[in-house]
Order: sequence, then C-alpha cells, then structure tokens
Amino acid sequence: MTEPDISFGSRLQGVLNDRGALCVGIDPHEHLLREWGLDDSAEGAREFGLRCIEASAGVAGVVKPQVAFFERFGSAGFEALEEVFAAARAAGILVIADAKRGDLGTTMDGYAGAWLTPGSPLEADALTVAPYMGTGSLAGAARHALEAGKGLFVLAATSNPEAAELQTSIVAQGPDEGRTVADAVARQVARLDPGSSVELSSLGLVLGATIDLAGLGIDVEAVAAAGTPVLAPGFGFQGAKASDVSGIFGPAARSVIVSASRSILAAGPSGLRDAVRQHAQQVREALS
Amino acid sequence: MTEPDISFGSRLQGVLNDRGALCVGIDPHEHLLREWGLDDSAEGAREFGLRCIEASAGVAGVVKPQVAFFERFGSAGFEALEEVFAAARAAGILVIADAKRGDLGTTMDGYAGAWLTPGSPLEADALTVAPYMGTGSLAGAARHALEAGKGLFVLAATSNPEAAELQTSIVAQGPDEGRTVADAVARQVARLDPGSSVELSSLGLVLGATIDLAGLGIDVEAVAAAGTPVLAPGFGFQGAKASDVSGIFGPAARSVIVSASRSILAAGPSGLRDAVRQHAQQVREALS
Repeated sequence: MTEPDISFGSRLQGVLNDRGALCVGIDPHEHLLREWGLDDSAEGAREFGLRCIEASAGVAGVVKPQVAFFERFGSAGFEALEEVFAAARAAGILVIADAKRGDLGTTMDGYAGAWLTPGSPLEADALTVAPYMGTGSLAGAARHALEAGKGLFVLAATSNPEAAELQTSIVAQGPDEGRTVADAVARQVARLDPGSSVELSSLGLVLGATIDLAGLGIDVEAVAAAGTPVLAPGFGFQGAKASDVSGIFGPAARSVIVSASRSILAAGPSGLRDAVRQHAQQVREALS
Repeated sequence: MTEPDISFGSRLQGVLNDRGALCVGIDPHEHLLREWGLDDSAEGAREFGLRCIEASAGVAGVVKPQVAFFERFGSAGFEALEEVFAAARAAGILVIADAKRGDLGTTMDGYAGAWLTPGSPLEADALTVAPYMGTGSLAGAARHALEAGKGLFVLAATSNPEAAELQTSIVAQGPDEGRTVADAVARQVARLDPGSSVELSSLGLVLGATIDLAGLGIDVEAVAAAGTPVLAPGFGFQGAKASDVSGIFGPAARSVIVSASRSILAAGPSGLRDAVRQHAQQVREALS
C-alpha cells in the first residue's frame, strides 16, 4: 500500500476544528424504524441511514452507524450499509463503523481489509474493535489502518454497567501488571502508534462518558499527551451532558468525539436536522 | 417466539454421538484461495465454502465458517456466506458462525437476530461471541438463543499468545472476585443456562486447546458437570493433537468440539474430502 496523503488523525483534527465534536449515531433499531414510519427491513434501514446523512451534512462532521442493526438483514442489510457509507463520504462526513470486531491477528487482517481499505465496498474512515483476545491481537489491524490512512477505536472503558467487572480486573503479568484492564488497553493503544506527537493519532479509544475514569486508573493527562482521540458514547439518553465533557475528560476533552444516538434519533425524520443542529451547537459551546 | 422443538445442545449431542467431534473450519484466507486456484473474490469465497460443505457432508457434523473472510467482500461476501450456510443446513451439518460479536445488550439483540433467528438470511445454529463488555451484556443474546433453539459459544480462554494478559487478569469485584477473567466468564456462562443437567447446554465456551486451563483456574470438572459444550480451536497447525483432547479437557472431553482449519484446508480441493475423513477418524479414535 502506498503512503496515504493524509492520516485519519489529521482528517479528524480538521473535522473537530471546522465542525466540532458531535458524532451522530445511526442506529436503525426495530422500534425506531417503526416510529419513523419505515419498514423493518434492509430498505427501511437504508432509508433511515440516508436521512441521517442528509440531516448531518454540513452540520456534524462524524457519523457512527451501528453495524448490528444493518447486519440483522444479512447481505441486503450490508448493501444498505454500503450505500449509507457512500452517501456519507460524498457529503464529506467521516464514518466510524461501529462493529466492535475482535479476533486473532490473521483474522483481524480480514476485518481490517473489509472496513479500512480504500475502494472496498464497506470502506469506512475508522472501525471500532474489541480487545478480549489481547490488544496485541489488534496490532496488525492497527498497522493496516495507519498505512491506509484509516483509524481504529479500541474499546477500553465502555459505558454499560455490566462491563465494570471485566474492565476493572487487575492485570497479573507483563509490563502493565497491577493496572486495570481498561487502563492497560489505553496504554497499549498509545504504544501502538508512537509517532503521534505533532497531530492526533489515528488510533483512538472508546471511553464511556458515564463512568469513573479515575477510578479505573485511566490517566486523561496521558491520553491527551499521546494525542489519542477518544470516542465517547453515553451522551443524551445514557445520562452524560455535553457540558460535562471538559469535567470528565480534562485535557483530553479537545480530542473527544461526543457521540449521541437516541437523543437525536428520537426527534423522528421531520425533526432530525434541527436535533442534529442543536446537539452540534451544544457540543461546540461546551468545548469552546 | 414459540418453544423450539429441540435445543441446540440436544442437536449437538446427537451430532457428537453420530458423527464425532470434528468441526471443519472454513477460512477462505487470501492465500488459500490462491492455492486452491480460486479468485480472491466473493465468488471465490463462495466456491471455497461450498467445496468445504461438500467434503464434510456425511463425514463431519459441524462446520465453522470464519465470518471475517467473507466480510472482506462486503455485501457480496455475505451473500456467499448465506449460500454456504444454506448448503450446510441442506447437508444436515451444524453451522457455528465464527463472528465473535460483542456489544451492549440492545445491540447484541441485533446480532442475535441476525445469526440466530430461524428464517433469517444469515441463520446459523450457533454464534461465537466476545465478552469484553461483560458476560452480562450477552444475557439477552443467550435468552434469544435458548428461545430460538440456537447456541452461543462465549470466548473464555483463547489460544493466541497475545490473549494471556487480559484473560489471566484478576477480577476485583462481584461474586467472582479473585478469579481470572477467563474463569469468571466460564462460570458466568454456566449460570446463564441453569437448566442443563439432563443434556448438553446450548451455551458453550471457547477454550483453546493449546493453553494451560488449570493455570487459568478453569475447572474442567465444573465445565463437565454443567454440561457446557466447548469449542476448542488450536488443533492441527496450531499445535494441539486430537489424541491430547482427553488429557487437556479431562471429564469435559466428551462435550468438546475439536476445531481444525489449516491442517484440513491445506490439502487443497482435490485432497479435501480425504483430509476431512482422516481428521474425523483421528478425533473419533481419540475420544472413543
């Protein structure tokens, strides 16, 4: 692969500067499709996704389609997802594919190939990945992302309550012995992209906005110093407010992507553009 | 959903009794497609998968398509996967979709709907899932599986070396405090299906065959007593031998699915059926 003209981290930095940190979650839940008057089908999910892109164009810089809600419909759902991705790209919006893939190194190459290869049908700008098989198992995908000008967001501390038990477990071997799993993942991701001092890294973390980061031992100063972008779900219906971002993430707040789904999508198709605009405005004010 | 006629655990037990414990991994890696003289395309992956089903019919009772190698080709790859699943079902072979999905409860409902719903395009018999967001986040998918007569295999201890650090971490809160992450996951999965004393459970574990289960604190007696099926990768090229199954898994060996991929697939299309037959025979002898 030839060197990309511009890294994902640089493109993300541009979007954060120009349009702000709001990320619109695209979650065509069965109940939302019904509320929007759409079929519970691949065609309904496609329509839902395209309306979200339309409502976000020029207002929000990042969208995060939740892959599961397209995968429900099998290959037809993936066709819909491909169209939504293409529409986002055409509108100049960054796409984070929220797929949370995770596997062995050679298998991760398959996933990285699928989502992070220029010209592939499912081409996105970045992919969420899960480290149950070790952060090391994601190293090949990270290399692929960096070489292709794409990004990864590795789950470290997620906002669902059932996650605490695993993510607060204490590492018992290796260089991160004594740290929590979430903290170890955060440090290991920073180590996977050591050359990121001048701009945002292309390797980010998922850190939920509703959890006690300090309690997990996560050092937001170190995250900021490494230039690690943070994808932060949990805003809106899940309880966190845009005005809390600086308080929660401290010096890392300037590289936080504030992701909201239900609080925007509940506005329905007619209120959607206004909802995106309001959310984008709130996020800009909170971070200015 | 109406009560299924027969649970996944019962169907799996029937297959283990009648055809033995071999599971044929279907991994259309780029290099294997080339070696087999097939295109590196969705069409090539489809052809690869269908030949694996043909070679397994009547000889092996379970196949495990690796979803990443179909996902590489986007919606066209998923269409190929749907055909491979349908061919397996028509041949009376159980399909474990190796997708390692993992997410929040409501999102997991989407994945369970995709892979574990009778009549859905991607219908499989069982799905591999990953617990980074907590075993509790998989409870809804587990309920869905049990109600639909389908199965789950939850990653507990995987065979890749990078996984040890996370999976040996020590749980610091809750009822499994003091146990390793892998052991806690194993116990929590058994608790998700308490009614399994008379037959195999439909909720299984992934336990690699090349790792020190006792060192992880995993109690194979408890796994056997809970009737938990075990999907065990790591045979063949990864180093474990069929003759080691009883030694590794002790009393749980009778519910182990012995998964081999590369050592079978390396035989190429012409030698495939013989390779499946030989592997199936070795596994039957080792477990008889």
